Amino acid sequence: MNKIPVAILGATGSVGQRFISLLNNHPWFEVAALAASDRSVGQRYSQAARWVLDVPMPAYAKEMIIVPASTEAVQARIVFSALHNEIAQELEPQFAKAGAAVCSNASSYRRAEDVPLLLPEVNADHIHLIQRQRSNKGWSGCIVANPNCTSAGLTVALKALDDAFGVKKVFAVSMQALSGAGYPGVSSMDMIDNVIPNINGEEEKVEWEPRKMLGNLVNGAIELADIQFSVHANRVAVLDGHTICASVKLSAAPPDVQTISQALCAYQAPAAARELPSAPAPAIHLRKEADRPQPRLDRLTGKGMTTVVGRVRKDPLLDIKFVVLSHNTIRGAAGGSIYNAELLVSQNLLMP
Amino acid sequence: MNKIPVAILGATGSVGQRFISLLNNHPWFEVAALAASDRSVGQRYSQAARWVLDVPMPAYAKEMIIVPASTEAVQARIVFSALHNEIAQELEPQFAKAGAAVCSNASSYRRAEDVPLLLPEVNADHIHLIQRQRSNKGWSGCIVANPNCTSAGLTVALKALDDAFGVKKVFAVSMQALSGAGYPGVSSMDMIDNVIPNINGEEEKVEWEPRKMLGNLVNGAIELADIQFSVHANRVAVLDGHTICASVKLSAAPPDVQTISQALCAYQAPAAARELPSAPAPAIHLRKEADRPQPRLDRLTGKGMTTVVGRVRKDPLLDIKFVVLSHNTIRGAAGGSIYNAELLVSQNLLMP
Amino acid sequence: MNKIPVAILGATGSVGQRFISLLNNHPWFEVAALAASDRSVGQRYSQAARWVLDVPMPAYAKEMIIVPASTEAVQARIVFSALHNEIAQELEPQFAKAGAAVCSNASSYRRAEDVPLLLPEVNADHIHLIQRQRSNKGWSGCIVANPNCTSAGLTVALKALDDAFGVKKVFAVSMQALSGAGYPGVSSMDMIDNVIPNINGEEEKVEWEPRKMLGNLVNGAIELADIQFSVHANRVAVLDGHTICASVKLSAAPPDVQTISQALCAYQAPAAARELPSAPAPAIHLRKEADRPQPRLDRLTGKGMTTVVGRVRKDPLLDIKFVVLSHNTIRGAAGGSIYNAELLVSQNLLMP
Amino acid sequence: MNKIPVAILGATGSVGQRFISLLNNHPWFEVAALAASDRSVGQRYSQAARWVLDVPMPAYAKEMIIVPASTEAVQARIVFSALHNEIAQELEPQFAKAGAAVCSNASSYRRAEDVPLLLPEVNADHIHLIQRQRSNKGWSGCIVANPNCTSAGLTVALKALDDAFGVKKVFAVSMQALSGAGYPGVSSMDMIDNVIPNINGEEEKVEWEPRKMLGNLVNGAIELADIQFSVHANRVAVLDGHTICASVKLSAAPPDVQTISQALCAYQAPAAARELPSAPAPAIHLRKEADRPQPRLDRLTGKGMTTVVGRVRKDPLLDIKFVVLSHNTIRGAAGGSIYNAELLVSQNLLMP
Repeated sequence: MNKIPVAILGATGSVGQRFISLLNNHPWFEVAALAASDRSVGQRYSQAARWVLDVPMPAYAKEMIIVPASTEAVQARIVFSALHNEIAQELEPQFAKAGAAVCSNASSYRRAEDVPLLLPEVNADHIHLIQRQRSNKGWSGCIVANPNCTSAGLTVALKALDDAFGVKKVFAVSMQALSGAGYPGVSSMDMIDNVIPNINGEEEKVEWEPRKMLGNLVNGAIELADIQFSVHANRVAVLDGHTICASVKLSAAPPDVQTISQALCAYQAPAAARELPSAPAPAIHLRKEADRPQPRLDRLTGKGMTTVVGRVRKDPLLDIKFVVLSHNTIRGAAGGSIYNAELLVSQNLLMP
Repeated sequence: MNKIPVAILGATGSVGQRFISLLNNHPWFEVAALAASDRSVGQRYSQAARWVLDVPMPAYAKEMIIVPASTEAVQARIVFSALHNEIAQELEPQFAKAGAAVCSNASSYRRAEDVPLLLPEVNADHIHLIQRQRSNKGWSGCIVANPNCTSAGLTVALKALDDAFGVKKVFAVSMQALSGAGYPGVSSMDMIDNVIPNINGEEEKVEWEPRKMLGNLVNGAIELADIQFSVHANRVAVLDGHTICASVKLSAAPPDVQTISQALCAYQAPAAARELPSAPAPAIHLRKEADRPQPRLDRLTGKGMTTVVGRVRKDPLLDIKFVVLSHNTIRGAAGGSIYNAELLVSQNLLMP
Repeated sequence: MNKIPVAILGATGSVGQRFISLLNNHPWFEVAALAASDRSVGQRYSQAARWVLDVPMPAYAKEMIIVPASTEAVQARIVFSALHNEIAQELEPQFAKAGAAVCSNASSYRRAEDVPLLLPEVNADHIHLIQRQRSNKGWSGCIVANPNCTSAGLTVALKALDDAFGVKKVFAVSMQALSGAGYPGVSSMDMIDNVIPNINGEEEKVEWEPRKMLGNLVNGAIELADIQFSVHANRVAVLDGHTICASVKLSAAPPDVQTISQALCAYQAPAAARELPSAPAPAIHLRKEADRPQPRLDRLTGKGMTTVVGRVRKDPLLDIKFVVLSHNTIRGAAGGSIYNAELLVSQNLLMP
Repeated sequence: MNKIPVAILGATGSVGQRFISLLNNHPWFEVAALAASDRSVGQRYSQAARWVLDVPMPAYAKEMIIVPASTEAVQARIVFSALHNEIAQELEPQFAKAGAAVCSNASSYRRAEDVPLLLPEVNADHIHLIQRQRSNKGWSGCIVANPNCTSAGLTVALKALDDAFGVKKVFAVSMQALSGAGYPGVSSMDMIDNVIPNINGEEEKVEWEPRKMLGNLVNGAIELADIQFSVHANRVAVLDGHTICASVKLSAAPPDVQTISQALCAYQAPAAARELPSAPAPAIHLRKEADRPQPRLDRLTGKGMTTVVGRVRKDPLLDIKFVVLSHNTIRGAAGGSIYNAELLVSQNLLMP
């Protein structure tokens, strides 16, 4: 089988690097173009990028020449966008219009009514929203968004609970990794021996995005889930992996901890999303130890795509509380976009 | 004025060191004895202690000879206890019986009905519970406890809100410093690039202790405050200073953020506790920046005795949310015990 | 081909864990026994070990039952020793006597005249010292040692220089990772915002061990290389990967930096050690950037077996200076012992 | 006594902040002007500066209005310069010409033949070089430089050895703190779990500056000390305090370790520099523990002005080796400039 040519926009940044790493030897995709800002255009990737991952730069990328992030310069059926939001807002529709399936990590179109906000293991069926998008916009391509890196893991855990018991209220406090702020991102002087108890705009995203993903696609529109969220976002001295303390009120009379744990363990992605190359295996991994999950030890569970949950216990105010861990640049960013692209392919939604 | 002779039990540990540091040049107290475990007895303090503070060991302590933690060896009117809980449970009553005012940092007697759990800027009047204690036990001395280091700052902030608006429910997630685990405490391999989402026994303490401190002393007994708590406790790579994200439901119709901020700013310790040498000045410091308080920058506010609050804002689930920071080994441990001792002295509650 | 049964002594510690991880799917070896201290004997490995690696515990190990570290309980042709030195000193000869090839990470026998101290990419021929060892001791098995984790990388770099130009003097300052101290090892309170400028016994090891490895095997005895060393050892807040700043005086008139760089790049392991499963590929990786190698980014070069060198430049006092990085628990510990075992097998030096 | 009005150029940066902190309640100086870049001009200092110190912003600075860094806007007899080098190069002579004594932390004029490079406890007599400077340039003011933050502590330790035994060769490896890079400086993603084995331009400075400071002022010119240096510079995850491993060859037959230790302990600043308000007390503090000095524990020795030395021992290659610690933004930057200014005042070298 010929591999599908894909491109990465914003290839030199930290999420771009994760795309390059995860697409190395991908069974379906082949990286055909790396695009970045004008400053880098014309350079070899190995010159232009300051590589920040602890896995080496894949050989395929080293000699590729950076091209501009324009529809003229980039020829690919799938375009992974690691662009900053303002640029993404302008460029992504151009690529969609030109026929590419844009799998975006930017926040620009997450709230657009005809853009699916996708975690395939949660709401694979929302992919069909792109039919309305194409009809609205007259595009042959499309835009598909993945959620904010903190929304991702939290929503997977909530989905398992919502399916089994109904979720009504969620209180969540995040302790987020540095890679979520890009490179150079947070100053080392702000992070050694410190916590920063805020991340601009993050709380609003995490209070809204899960409602779209846990909502239903009815008559070509998403009905937001009727769940109330309160979120506090913090930055801590962790390289990768967002940890979230969550307390949840359920619709049903609260079951015991064991029943809840079983629901989390038993959760499976929808059939359409279960066998894809990047599908997390398992979707949720439940840890039983008193002090897990921990980002350093657990973030690479299921190659960084699995949502890890631990410390499930009764909550004195709501019903249950637990801890969620998710790899923010794999499940919560580049890996998530690739998983979305695989879903598009498997559903025959790419333009020929 | 002759200074009052005081002793420190558990003087070589990290809280013991903080006692030694804070009692240097104290206007009322003079350290007359340093007691520690058998292994250290007979050694000079500078030999026996592995000093872990970033302020130097005070000169007065260096040449003191460690004595056993027994009523025979320790002669002092006030005894500061930085003992481990099991040992505290056994030894503190012996000292109280022998006539000493034991100001304890251990958790052993915090839940005892006749032991005041004190934050003078919150519940100075609870000090009078020792009259019942003395009558119950026949002691000429007494035991006074200070709360868990996470309960301390949280309770100060809640007190200001409770006085102004009534507090009904509290959701709190802590990001706690390493010094709270003592020395050597947490392994560096568990803390670099990591978060540990649990601290044994901590959540139960923080869900209960504020209720005692915010309760009323009625007819010689404490009526626990009718407030529900849900707490998640985490350990992060911070040396000193516990950060807490809190969401609170109030009794009254929720006032606006400015009114709440004013109530926090305006809060004052009870008159009896306001002018003592260790009284925090101010009791609460409200930060207006979007990203404060931060432990490294704010923990030494008011010499480490002030509770720092920031990010006051509406909470979508309860009424308000905010961040609290408190120095865990100063306000939350040694400094708190010294403040308690000052209250005892100022209220003429020491035995002559 | 039937795989060779191997055992790990000290399997629950941090080096033991690295053995378990690296032996997962090893082409030649199969783990037949995991031995640890009495406290763990009889437990499943997944219960007994507090796993500290950021790669998951291999499935094969989880259900294995820990056995005592005795020749009765452990049946294996190769025994990997991650024992503490005192215990290693006692037990390793027992296993050698019983016929096992003991590949040891302990320091107990590194200085023994008939024990090869091996880095196969440096001194594979020293393996033949075991013939004298067997004849001396009457053992059917043998003991083969790998060097201290700091000596390892430094010696590989020096070997390339010594072969090309002769090395006379070495000044080296290490910045060593926490995993070198085992678990729990260094307290987090000693490591956040800090450097510890000493590691007990380390400097003496690094001033001596390279002389044995760079020496010649003549008439069944090692002649120590005539090189003078001065070493300073430091502990820094890094999880894995020892960084060494080295300045070197050469025998020959000092060549230019480019010639030296070429010698480092061109270095190859001796033929006998070049094609083994754990052979580093390449033996030395030379980085040209101004700020590399860095432990987080470069420690996994060549699966953690490659020695990474950078910043080669003139030294104003001696001849040249450079930076060396080596993964301390892979190249410098478990991976090194496995490489040694592979050399034994390929040289037909195992007992049948 | 009326205090002398002083100004700070570059007041909002991290060194500028340290100036503001150290000048709080200074017995001789009063801060009359805070100057910074155009972006900040006209704002209150508390608005303009992102305060990064863990001691609070002094009250006096909060309401001061930032002025431009020009001789028109800044009226002060002493000007402390925390400017970037390019700007310092242009502006400092203007201030000197206008009559101010410029005490500079920039590197621009450190190598100028008529600019004293000063550590008063080392080479207070070099201050008289400004007479030649004034005569050369026709200035009524002057420029006095303090050395690079790594040169500072190293040079103090070398001075004690040079006076007692003569110093011939120095090998030094630094592990430098983050505050030396300013704010935001080094990315947290480069510093968590990492070491950066290079700091641009640093090694050249530390190989040269001590030679000027240890040189002699003869006939109005400095003769560089005849000492050879080799330096490796590294950045580590420490907030404040540079640690240096040094090996030294002496002129005299190497004395024993005790004699060397005594020389370090006994070292005193020249009489002219001994009683000034910022004089370190003591100039050198010798630690005897096996694992000290450590930056977190020892950097504030002597209010951050003392050079701390430890681990004095024989060096197998040269003569002795030891560890030096010095607070980089106090002794190595702002505190050093203030100490220089005090020397100018005490020597009656300020213009009236």
